[in-house]
Amino acid sequence: MPQAHLQVKILAHTPDPLSVIYASFRQCYHQGYVGDMWERLQNGEISTEKQAEFVRNIITSGHESPIEHVTFTFALSGVSRALTHQLVRHRIASYSQQSQRYVDAGGMEYILPPSIKRNPEILARYEDFMEEVGKAYHDIKTMLEEDGRGSLAKEDARMVLPQAAASNIVVTMNCRSLLNFFEHRCCTRAQWEIRDCANKMLLECRKVLPEIFKSAGAKCERLGYCPEGEKFCCGRYPVRHSDKA
Amino acid sequence: MPQAHLQVKILAHTPDPLSVIYASFRQCYHQGYVGDMWERLQNGEISTEKQAEFVRNIITSGHESPIEHVTFTFALSGVSRALTHQLVRHRIASYSQQSQRYVDAGGMEYILPPSIKRNPEILARYEDFMEEVGKAYHDIKTMLEEDGRGSLAKEDARMVLPQAAASNIVVTMNCRSLLNFFEHRCCTRAQWEIRDCANKMLLECRKVLPEIFKSAGAKCERLGYCPEGEKFCCGRYPVRHSDKA
Amino acid sequence: MPQAHLQVKILAHTPDPLSVIYASFRQCYHQGYVGDMWERLQNGEISTEKQAEFVRNIITSGHESPIEHVTFTFALSGVSRALTHQLVRHRIASYSQQSQRYVDAGGMEYILPPSIKRNPEILARYEDFMEEVGKAYHDIKTMLEEDGRGSLAKEDARMVLPQAAASNIVVTMNCRSLLNFFEHRCCTRAQWEIRDCANKMLLECRKVLPEIFKSAGAKCERLGYCPEGEKFCCGRYPVRHSDKA
Amino acid sequence: MPQAHLQVKILAHTPDPLSVIYASFRQCYHQGYVGDMWERLQNGEISTEKQAEFVRNIITSGHESPIEHVTFTFALSGVSRALTHQLVRHRIASYSQQSQRYVDAGGMEYILPPSIKRNPEILARYEDFMEEVGKAYHDIKTMLEEDGRGSLAKEDARMVLPQAAASNIVVTMNCRSLLNFFEHRCCTRAQWEIRDCANKMLLECRKVLPEIFKSAGAKCERLGYCPEGEKFCCGRYPVRHSDKA
Repeated sequence: MPQAHLQVKILAHTPDPLSVIYASFRQCYHQGYVGDMWERLQNGEISTEKQAEFVRNIITSGHESPIEHVTFTFALSGVSRALTHQLVRHRIASYSQQSQRYVDAGGMEYILPPSIKRNPEILARYEDFMEEVGKAYHDIKTMLEEDGRGSLAKEDARMVLPQAAASNIVVTMNCRSLLNFFEHRCCTRAQWEIRDCANKMLLECRKVLPEIFKSAGAKCERLGYCPEGEKFCCGRYPVRHSDKA
Repeated sequence: MPQAHLQVKILAHTPDPLSVIYASFRQCYHQGYVGDMWERLQNGEISTEKQAEFVRNIITSGHESPIEHVTFTFALSGVSRALTHQLVRHRIASYSQQSQRYVDAGGMEYILPPSIKRNPEILARYEDFMEEVGKAYHDIKTMLEEDGRGSLAKEDARMVLPQAAASNIVVTMNCRSLLNFFEHRCCTRAQWEIRDCANKMLLECRKVLPEIFKSAGAKCERLGYCPEGEKFCCGRYPVRHSDKA
Repeated sequence: MPQAHLQVKILAHTPDPLSVIYASFRQCYHQGYVGDMWERLQNGEISTEKQAEFVRNIITSGHESPIEHVTFTFALSGVSRALTHQLVRHRIASYSQQSQRYVDAGGMEYILPPSIKRNPEILARYEDFMEEVGKAYHDIKTMLEEDGRGSLAKEDARMVLPQAAASNIVVTMNCRSLLNFFEHRCCTRAQWEIRDCANKMLLECRKVLPEIFKSAGAKCERLGYCPEGEKFCCGRYPVRHSDKA
Repeated sequence: MPQAHLQVKILAHTPDPLSVIYASFRQCYHQGYVGDMWERLQNGEISTEKQAEFVRNIITSGHESPIEHVTFTFALSGVSRALTHQLVRHRIASYSQQSQRYVDAGGMEYILPPSIKRNPEILARYEDFMEEVGKAYHDIKTMLEEDGRGSLAKEDARMVLPQAAASNIVVTMNCRSLLNFFEHRCCTRAQWEIRDCANKMLLECRKVLPEIFKSAGAKCERLGYCPEGEKFCCGRYPVRHSDKA
């Protein structure tokens, strides 16, 4: 069981994302039909700056739904089952994950937490254990096969696989769901692995659609203060003391 | 109030939709990472036919979730508020609709049902009434403005606007939600207007992604029989008598 | 077409709502199984005060998902189609609405906006128009029936019905979705009718589950400031000027 | 690490579930307001049989949405992380799961697959491995604490915990989502553990609301044939050969 490394790749996103958002937003307040305006948008007759200004206003005013029309599809690799179990709790999204029931885990890799990597003694204990896992998976799968369990062999042998077992997953979210995902998972209170993954996804989103994602991130980035309370605040932004008394 | 005409236009859809679905499906059963396979898919190294065969298998086997990764964004025009009220009941979707609170309905158009259009007497009664609506909207809005109601004038005057009032709306659905939408709304039991709109949307989807949408439509198209029962069956497919007794 | 009056009635809600939320929250952080704790909760061995304190902490800390386990089912009457079209845009909810395709609108009532009610001249114009609607609906439906259109008669005649037409609808939302609904619809920026309805729903929720709904309402109630900006702020709370510059 | 045993307990469900569904269904086709009918329903003036007949018709006709108004909240215990990872993929539901980040896994139990339990040799290998897991968790957590990792110790030590690790989870689904859950997870193609859990949940639902759940289960129970194809059919119902050719 060798160590896995996080990979984040955008497979696809809605083309002309800024124009799709701009057109959707305009349709709410515009007397005409944005289908008629679409060609002009495609031809660049309405400048990116003008569209971007509109879009900034969307975000500021709290009218967020038009950004849902744009989706991003990511392929993630080298993420633990601990991470994917957290990830799929985000329900406004679509997932296709590598199955441990169908895919043989013989050569499966594992995630190595930085806290363990930095301490040679803990690292040795961890790596020894992962080797034990590989043996146990192999032994139990083989014994189940010899016992005539057929397809159940992989399915039940995987019960020994650790949370650290590396997985691959394809995930699609729209921009509104992504902003919510980043608010929760880019925060220092999030688990280090999903935070690392969220930060890499955010960097990719920013390249494609800076108008939406430039100021995205943990809740504090939008609020200008930390809503997590004194006990949990990381210090990046001050905790806000309510004026409400 | 002149008559409105249905327009259906795809503003955007996930690029390379077949490859996105193929890659997502493969990720479930594949030991490797589809991010590594993506370039080969982009380069055409895996033929459309091979990908399409896989995708057909998805639909046949009942494993539908990978098709969620592909979304379509439509701009619809010339649809009644009766239609949009039905449309937005489909919850796995995103909508941006022309607001009657903010957009003046002075020049608003209306939908004309074929059953009314074909009978000159009924048509005359309908058109007379629509003229009355235009006057009532104008009168009440003006009186409310003169009464100092400001932005409430449009908001409350619209209470007189008919279900027939034409609207524009941008809608995004993923392929799985679209198949469900077509199952319900392409059926002859659906209201004529939303059926007409669904059929036009389906034609557009078929041009882009025939592998998914060729056999889409009302439930009977997939089942090979009509599940609506003797009373409601249109005759296109036979009603199925359960073997279950 | 007589005037309709808003009615809001809770048909059902999750029983022991505070205990369901408390138990769900505890399960996240508790080594044991809350199924074993449930009897003690039912017997009152854990005081309402203790449970309520926990629940307050949920809301303060931003961990909101446990409140989703409790749902409320409302029956609403005397609401306009303008209101229901806005209502059903809340997608994390379930709806059963009176159908204009199947229910004859012969005796249908209509909603009367306060801005129109208070001005006798506007009121007269509005009521005259509503009488015209009743006649047009009757005429067109009858003519369509005589033209042999069968069930299409009601379906197409309803095209003349106004946004003001009264409807009945059953709606179920969980507490988290309700809080979001109240944040948007109890704000003075919301349309008066849905705000009126949301406020009445909130009053009913408060009677059942004050621990969750006491401080619920427009966004400002939770934030302690108005996020809508100078232009739209109603003055109830001050607009917040970001420290972020 | 001792063996865990599945427990399924309903914490709460919508009271008067049949009447809530009946009233919601009636509201769609009824000229009046079901709020006015509710007292008569509560008083038993409309017989259970009459309500049940209506509800059967809902299910038969394919109009399923009114059953969404009724929700069930379950507390599950003794389920593996493999099971919960599958469970939370059902997105129309709410979950509160025991956190491995916050709850010490020192005394954690594990799930024992029947295929392993029945073979003493495989069982011994499995139990030996689980003992190794307990030691590795303890060692790594202790070393991380001694290394000054604080709260990260539990969070990162859990990386060694197996898919078999027992978890507790509270789950709420509405009846429509439950029917879908049972269709997929009561099928013999589902993994044995989630099938076992789904079957137990179904038994509990049947006690409360037989009108909806009597005929629920795998897809074949509703269809009267197996849609999984020759290769996967368990033989309970015949595979259907399409007449569509």
